[in-house]
Amino acid sequence: MAQVQRMSRLMVKTLRDDPADAETLNHKLLVRAGYVRRTAAGIWTWLPLGKKVYENVARVVREEMDAIGGQEVLLPALLPKEPYEASGRYEEYGDLLFRLKDRKGSDYLLGPTHEEIFTQVVKDQCSSYKDLPVILYQIQTKYRDEARPRAGVLRGREFQMKDSYSFDASDEGLAEAYALHRAAYQRIFERLGLDYRIVSAVSGAMGGSASEEFLAPAPAGEDTFVDCPECDYAANTEAVTFALKPVSVDGHPAVEELDTPDTPTIETLAEHLGVPASATLKNLLVKVDGEIVAVGVPGDREVDLGKLGEHLAPAEVELVTAEDFEGRDDLVRGYVGPQGLEKVRYIADPRVAPGTSWITGANKADRHARNVVCGRDFEVDDYLDVVVVEAGDPCPACGAGLRLDRAIEIGHIFQLGRKYADTFQLDVLGQNGKPVRVTMGSYGIGVSRAVAALVEQSADEQGLCWPAEVAPADVHVVAAGKAVQTELALDVSEQLNAAGVRVLVDDRAGVSPGVKFTDAELIGVPKILVAGRRSAEGVLELKDRRTGEREELSVAEAIARLSA
Amino acid sequence: MAQVQRMSRLMVKTLRDDPADAETLNHKLLVRAGYVRRTAAGIWTWLPLGKKVYENVARVVREEMDAIGGQEVLLPALLPKEPYEASGRYEEYGDLLFRLKDRKGSDYLLGPTHEEIFTQVVKDQCSSYKDLPVILYQIQTKYRDEARPRAGVLRGREFQMKDSYSFDASDEGLAEAYALHRAAYQRIFERLGLDYRIVSAVSGAMGGSASEEFLAPAPAGEDTFVDCPECDYAANTEAVTFALKPVSVDGHPAVEELDTPDTPTIETLAEHLGVPASATLKNLLVKVDGEIVAVGVPGDREVDLGKLGEHLAPAEVELVTAEDFEGRDDLVRGYVGPQGLEKVRYIADPRVAPGTSWITGANKADRHARNVVCGRDFEVDDYLDVVVVEAGDPCPACGAGLRLDRAIEIGHIFQLGRKYADTFQLDVLGQNGKPVRVTMGSYGIGVSRAVAALVEQSADEQGLCWPAEVAPADVHVVAAGKAVQTELALDVSEQLNAAGVRVLVDDRAGVSPGVKFTDAELIGVPKILVAGRRSAEGVLELKDRRTGEREELSVAEAIARLSA
Repeated sequence: MAQVQRMSRLMVKTLRDDPADAETLNHKLLVRAGYVRRTAAGIWTWLPLGKKVYENVARVVREEMDAIGGQEVLLPALLPKEPYEASGRYEEYGDLLFRLKDRKGSDYLLGPTHEEIFTQVVKDQCSSYKDLPVILYQIQTKYRDEARPRAGVLRGREFQMKDSYSFDASDEGLAEAYALHRAAYQRIFERLGLDYRIVSAVSGAMGGSASEEFLAPAPAGEDTFVDCPECDYAANTEAVTFALKPVSVDGHPAVEELDTPDTPTIETLAEHLGVPASATLKNLLVKVDGEIVAVGVPGDREVDLGKLGEHLAPAEVELVTAEDFEGRDDLVRGYVGPQGLEKVRYIADPRVAPGTSWITGANKADRHARNVVCGRDFEVDDYLDVVVVEAGDPCPACGAGLRLDRAIEIGHIFQLGRKYADTFQLDVLGQNGKPVRVTMGSYGIGVSRAVAALVEQSADEQGLCWPAEVAPADVHVVAAGKAVQTELALDVSEQLNAAGVRVLVDDRAGVSPGVKFTDAELIGVPKILVAGRRSAEGVLELKDRRTGEREELSVAEAIARLSA
Repeated sequence: MAQVQRMSRLMVKTLRDDPADAETLNHKLLVRAGYVRRTAAGIWTWLPLGKKVYENVARVVREEMDAIGGQEVLLPALLPKEPYEASGRYEEYGDLLFRLKDRKGSDYLLGPTHEEIFTQVVKDQCSSYKDLPVILYQIQTKYRDEARPRAGVLRGREFQMKDSYSFDASDEGLAEAYALHRAAYQRIFERLGLDYRIVSAVSGAMGGSASEEFLAPAPAGEDTFVDCPECDYAANTEAVTFALKPVSVDGHPAVEELDTPDTPTIETLAEHLGVPASATLKNLLVKVDGEIVAVGVPGDREVDLGKLGEHLAPAEVELVTAEDFEGRDDLVRGYVGPQGLEKVRYIADPRVAPGTSWITGANKADRHARNVVCGRDFEVDDYLDVVVVEAGDPCPACGAGLRLDRAIEIGHIFQLGRKYADTFQLDVLGQNGKPVRVTMGSYGIGVSRAVAALVEQSADEQGLCWPAEVAPADVHVVAAGKAVQTELALDVSEQLNAAGVRVLVDDRAGVSPGVKFTDAELIGVPKILVAGRRSAEGVLELKDRRTGEREELSVAEAIARLSA
């Protein structure tokens, strides 16, 4: 049987002040309440109370993964270089990867995620379609050498993740495994008490196709997402699309060149001409694998270089420098227009649709042109969604103005497809006796990050305020200080424990009632049961940590209520 | 509720042949039975069945640590260099330590054990004697870059350990924490079903005083230990002592020089003189921190350089080379004797006691001396136990002849004392208001290694054979193959599962009964329940995996028996 946790014996030291370097709620409160301690930048120790919360989150994840037939395994964190070289990620991860050598000089890495190794495991263990489908998962320590580790346990360099991988012999199988994970994730986050949204996502460095993120809205979040106030559309900002709506190219006046001295920027141009920036066409020059490419967007919008990079991956995107203009008389800096840019690939946002008319550079110094019509005066080589999404942009689903919010990414599900199976030639014998290439899904939940997200969403001015399923205890019993109070507190604690209630009791001697009450609020167990003024009569006060509601109860009533 | 594990869905691939490179039982059988898979040298993946066994071991450890008041925490594995530099271990560990740099060039290591970080945690969290005693533990991944990782999961480079640390304000407190751990370890190893011995140990690189090892006798073990057939003495071979028994120096004949041409070794000398090697005195020259030192042992014994190093640590011990004799006319190679070696420190084994008489070098080429008496003709500067212990050596407790056996170290408990508290100035406020230096204990159990030890001790020719508490299931139900048999097997499996019995059922289609029986023996679940020949009558056969005993039972009887 579990034991009553006594504060007099528990290693928990609360602090009144925030750590000097803390910027986020989870960092401030988890340190102040004695849940975690920083060991190095982005590297944390989970103290006894923190470990309990962490284990509660892990347990919920484990139960729901088991329920969809997931098989738990444990892979190493120290991994040989070769599989990651084969997939290309040893290089792609760049500085994010912790790399090291062993005593013989062989190269290793600390696993940031384990697609390669799981693929090898399944190649070794499964040989026939009969061995599939398989869902494997682990709850394990991961490593990413973040440039700016911060925000407490929200974004560590060492952190805990549940990662799972599905292996199927058919696309239908993958779709089913994906759906199973999606439903399991919904149950997990609901049980954890997290407010979350499921949004469409681009898959980034992982490769692959269908992909959704589970986002927990919170001001401390590092992700921005959009959602629609009118319909259920929600997406990662990088995944928002704008529909291409061509109109007729006819009926526009002819192109007219304008004398526009000293107007190398959209701002100077719009002011000079007295037009809104949105009437102009901005042409950003970038280098894609070393070749200069122009990217056209409305003058009032910004190009999202991250999004552009995602679209063009694995090609490398860089900004142009002055040197790149040497010997390129066709490129007049500050006065570039797509008309007559024959040697340059032209990428445009769908807002620059066929039939739209623009004021843009005339490809001559101090000159612009107006009535430059897409599809008449210039052609777009590729349409890509590359503008930074803004609040009010139209919802791709219903057209209503989108909202923009910050969130924490707590889960991510991907249909990887055959990328890794191709790399490692993962085939199984099909029903017809011929080899079938296996298709994969990859699914992650940040377990330590979920703890941070819970704090960011649930804490209040008094401190932590845990949802029941993850709290380090069900009830925090406070002995106000006198002998009769301590006696009652310990007695009711033992009775509650015997009834299966998880109890933390503040039985510390020489600590004032005020400090104990403040600590109880800070530590954030959902119910606080005080053996105070009326202890001699056997009457306790039960307080709800979130609402602050109080009521007086007898011991029997308290036990009945809390064990219900 | 737990689910029935169906072999048709479980990722478990059994092999008939041992892996080519496997030398030990645990390596052979855990791979063949589909419990683990090698990812790199000394780096293993725990597959679904292996993960279950691993978790069962971890659960037992956790329960017993909680029972002695241990508080579970989780420290990082990626650690900053500085605390290990402060303790000196960053250098001391040598090539055993995995070292790496982050993107900024700062030095990190992968934790081999966590004394330094725990000391820092307690310094941060505890300030008064009232905050002590504290026992902290974690079950966590550790790293040691072994020169020859081998023997399966017995000696990995990445492995799982329970490490715990006690912090006390007094020596009595440390003794109590040590006793608590000792008793908890006994309960743990008994519950796991391990045969073990508790032996005295020297503490090695850990520093500190009282120390015992828990050893699981097994031929694959890398440790040698002695135990006494007459009393309960047992010890690590490095910890065996020999009592110094001085006798009178009187009554011996005078020293006599002998002409002994071409006898630079004990063998040549003993043969030339026709005496047993035990009558001669061997004087090994070594360098201790660069200074030449002679070590005297009986001619029939070997010097244990590891043991010598332990005694002289932190001084560095090296063998002498030819160069070291240059300009040292007092050292005649092959003919060294302790008499007249005035410039050299003389260390001797207690067998070279005052009053014993020896044949030894005369410090002249081709000359030896006899009747050289310790305490009359030479003095010993330091007595140290430095000989390699041999079977038949006298028991330090009762004098009977010791036995020598191989074993696996599965646990180790240390009274560290104040070594780390001194390094990090870990003080708490004492009862008298003055600072008290904290004293520490350090306690480890190899969790992954315990799994290997269980295999080494319990497997038989048919395969694995788990003790009940750690087995991946309580019963392995085999459906021989026909529809009626599969139906009965699945039905009884569900009923057993509902009764709280952990069930693995072999419901695979297209697999012969013979293969299923062989697999069941290999996988090693303690009870095997076969739905075979008499399935239509509802009669099953229950087999005990260890004894091979069989009996026929009805479904109701089987459920009653297995859920008892």
